[in-house]
Amino acid sequence: MNAAIDLNCDLGESFGPYTIGMDDAVLPLVTSANIACGFHGGDPRVMERTVERAAELGIGIGAHVGYPDRVGFGRREIHATAGEVRTDVIYQIGALYAFCRALGVELQHVKPHGALYNQAARDAVLAQAVVAGIAAFDRRLIVLAPPGSQLARAAVAAGLPVALEGFADRGYNPDGSLVSRRQDGAVLHDPAEVAARALRMVREGKVRAVDGRDVTLTVQSLCIHGDNPASVSLARAVRQRLEAAGVAIRPLRAIVGHQA
Amino acid sequence: MNAAIDLNCDLGESFGPYTIGMDDAVLPLVTSANIACGFHGGDPRVMERTVERAAELGIGIGAHVGYPDRVGFGRREIHATAGEVRTDVIYQIGALYAFCRALGVELQHVKPHGALYNQAARDAVLAQAVVAGIAAFDRRLIVLAPPGSQLARAAVAAGLPVALEGFADRGYNPDGSLVSRRQDGAVLHDPAEVAARALRMVREGKVRAVDGRDVTLTVQSLCIHGDNPASVSLARAVRQRLEAAGVAIRPLRAIVGHQA
Amino acid sequence: MNAAIDLNCDLGESFGPYTIGMDDAVLPLVTSANIACGFHGGDPRVMERTVERAAELGIGIGAHVGYPDRVGFGRREIHATAGEVRTDVIYQIGALYAFCRALGVELQHVKPHGALYNQAARDAVLAQAVVAGIAAFDRRLIVLAPPGSQLARAAVAAGLPVALEGFADRGYNPDGSLVSRRQDGAVLHDPAEVAARALRMVREGKVRAVDGRDVTLTVQSLCIHGDNPASVSLARAVRQRLEAAGVAIRPLRAIVGHQA
Amino acid sequence: MNAAIDLNCDLGESFGPYTIGMDDAVLPLVTSANIACGFHGGDPRVMERTVERAAELGIGIGAHVGYPDRVGFGRREIHATAGEVRTDVIYQIGALYAFCRALGVELQHVKPHGALYNQAARDAVLAQAVVAGIAAFDRRLIVLAPPGSQLARAAVAAGLPVALEGFADRGYNPDGSLVSRRQDGAVLHDPAEVAARALRMVREGKVRAVDGRDVTLTVQSLCIHGDNPASVSLARAVRQRLEAAGVAIRPLRAIVGHQA
Repeated sequence: MNAAIDLNCDLGESFGPYTIGMDDAVLPLVTSANIACGFHGGDPRVMERTVERAAELGIGIGAHVGYPDRVGFGRREIHATAGEVRTDVIYQIGALYAFCRALGVELQHVKPHGALYNQAARDAVLAQAVVAGIAAFDRRLIVLAPPGSQLARAAVAAGLPVALEGFADRGYNPDGSLVSRRQDGAVLHDPAEVAARALRMVREGKVRAVDGRDVTLTVQSLCIHGDNPASVSLARAVRQRLEAAGVAIRPLRAIVGHQA
Repeated sequence: MNAAIDLNCDLGESFGPYTIGMDDAVLPLVTSANIACGFHGGDPRVMERTVERAAELGIGIGAHVGYPDRVGFGRREIHATAGEVRTDVIYQIGALYAFCRALGVELQHVKPHGALYNQAARDAVLAQAVVAGIAAFDRRLIVLAPPGSQLARAAVAAGLPVALEGFADRGYNPDGSLVSRRQDGAVLHDPAEVAARALRMVREGKVRAVDGRDVTLTVQSLCIHGDNPASVSLARAVRQRLEAAGVAIRPLRAIVGHQA
Repeated sequence: MNAAIDLNCDLGESFGPYTIGMDDAVLPLVTSANIACGFHGGDPRVMERTVERAAELGIGIGAHVGYPDRVGFGRREIHATAGEVRTDVIYQIGALYAFCRALGVELQHVKPHGALYNQAARDAVLAQAVVAGIAAFDRRLIVLAPPGSQLARAAVAAGLPVALEGFADRGYNPDGSLVSRRQDGAVLHDPAEVAARALRMVREGKVRAVDGRDVTLTVQSLCIHGDNPASVSLARAVRQRLEAAGVAIRPLRAIVGHQA
Repeated sequence: MNAAIDLNCDLGESFGPYTIGMDDAVLPLVTSANIACGFHGGDPRVMERTVERAAELGIGIGAHVGYPDRVGFGRREIHATAGEVRTDVIYQIGALYAFCRALGVELQHVKPHGALYNQAARDAVLAQAVVAGIAAFDRRLIVLAPPGSQLARAAVAAGLPVALEGFADRGYNPDGSLVSRRQDGAVLHDPAEVAARALRMVREGKVRAVDGRDVTLTVQSLCIHGDNPASVSLARAVRQRLEAAGVAIRPLRAIVGHQA
């Protein structure tokens, strides 16, 4: 179905003396990098280094914007106002953009992180706040969002380019939503199975839900993880399977450009 | 001597629930605003609001970059590496630039704040780090620096536009440096005297030092303060005296443009 | 009804260079101080100074524990786990206790701040987490809570001393809850009216609700505010009215001690 | 020379989602734990967990107090005032004490971290500020300090119990100071050599300096590290060598108690 697919991953989440994630191992596997902007993870040194590596590899660079909650890693929902979210998004995009500009590369996309991602997926007001922040900075930035989400809707309504992402290693409900991590079948661990699901999502635009039925799912990107050796192995299996099947793996700007 | 002078002031230092400075009172008096970028003061809401007001009044907007030391308000020297300072500067400029871009105005200048200003004035390595951060983002940004400082020197050496600033309400040593705040004569409080000194700096390029001798001091900007009613009164006296004497009061971009 | 009443106020919310609240004006009016512990407001210098002043005046000292959200002043709900809340409470109590110990005074009570207060009032799990944190440190600490709240319930269930507080300047619903700030009648501004309500709460254990009916409300403390000149005037009116009527105004430890 | 020696290690430096140090591996090797208090490292969850583990193993618990500089990990000198340092020390001791109290164990000692350790070693004013903070909380707390330091001097002058520490894996200058990390011979890596030096420090109170001469060095504790597998191996070698030689390895409270 898709001529090409993007592989995106959260990167640059280390901070000060603390290292998190296997950035060096996973960078060669992806085509788009969601880089933390210093609110939930990352710091100016980590941001510069990550932008630099991504640029060397031709990887599309995205601002991974989150809540100002470092101790909670941006994973705790905060009842922020729309104005707070919008201005926090503008601030973070600008901070990451500065390193892109310093290194002579384009900023490609924006993806909310953690709790902000989840809230913007289901809450129209917050979704519009995130999109308003992105649009205020640059209306050409691609919004990376889950299919069927309020975030995707808000981005489309605002006229911003949107890319939808799928998760090859996550279980899906029959309605296309992800199985909650508190339920069985939420996370898949077998590299062969995950790679096969990735290929089917890309080729057929379908994924088998937990009840055995097929769900239609059109995505321009697959989200992979680099948290630990197992997740890097999964990512490698996905990439190899797609390449072996002749799927082109390209940064979002190439994918969304083709479809727009 | 000067056909025109800029008046700059530190603004946008409020944070979350906390208000500091009399921004509303002092904004109409200045032509350049040094806006805190969220490290030592300011937050995304305050930054947006301050950029917006400055833009409405045609005030030149500058990034007031400081150390990540909110409880110490950026006034405590930190033994940061050159690399830390450079990347912190890039980050903060980008964050403020984002609000300028969102509101459709140019970023005009950069001025280090507090301890970073003092260290960059006397330490060549830190001065070069600050300048490297500014140059990495945009080589057209004006560096606002004290006369004779390492910061001014580093900016000139790097080919960046420089504006030198004077302080009409501060005592000067015979070598052109400021009298330390721990000594007598460090700060002047009489509006008439301060206004007269301001005018003489602008017209004659001279200021009387604490020992009674004249010091030559060529500046393109005067730094005024808006911390309290007394400092706002001083600022008003300076502005009125300059205007009464026919001195044009213009943003840095107009001044430095003329001289470059 | 009450032989004596406590007057409590949030204090010590200033931070670094930032001043908030009229602590000097309101300190002589209260008998219990809820002192910020450095998470939502306050810093070690402010904490020490506030404990010192409170001690000099014989005011009961309480830890005002909040979310680690300085930019949001602890007013934004955070979906923290019970374990996060419990340990954050222990940490903050210990930090404030250290200044009490250094100055040779007792820590009297604990009151959650802002969003944590609101969440602990209605959410049994969070209420138990707050109480567990307090009990872990010292089971003699008085828990200051709204009447009928989950927080009060959890404290009673855990066997901790509880003090209930009323708000003379807030409207009440017929069920004893506060009128939301988004509705009319939420906040009262007339000093005479507020003072009269305060006296009636203390004497009769009743307050007139927004629908005109009386609500029974037994409280051991009234919460007053020192945010601005108007709130200080209200506080002064309340104190004077109570004193004129012969009501004893005493710290919580005296009140709750009598009733326990 | 010594009947017994303490082995101390920095622990509990992890933060939020970030893990640092091999606490599980090194905990069984030490008798005193310097636990970060949330300023340069650590958070309330990490603090509780680390106190709990240390208590289970009978390890002496110490507050590892540092600068509020998380991104710099407390390793950057800050020009803080004596008052700022003193109150920051009180705050951090109280926070860690709270978890000790909650878990029913004693707080044994205090050790400054990183830049604060270095500054308090050579600067009498800062050393007195650190000691004043400790003394304000509890005059029985043992101050862990380098031999010949201003910190040791200030603690002795203030009448607080002091323990001196040595570093078996660091080179010493002929005057008893550590060889700077910027010079050759600063750090030793051979487990057998490090273990032999440790034993000689304990038995003979001597260490061979970089110029080949012996330096007299009386210490009550050896500082070991658990940053990585190599440092844990060194620590294990030191412990085994000491035990094989019949040296008793005891917490500071036992050692300093014997000598006082």
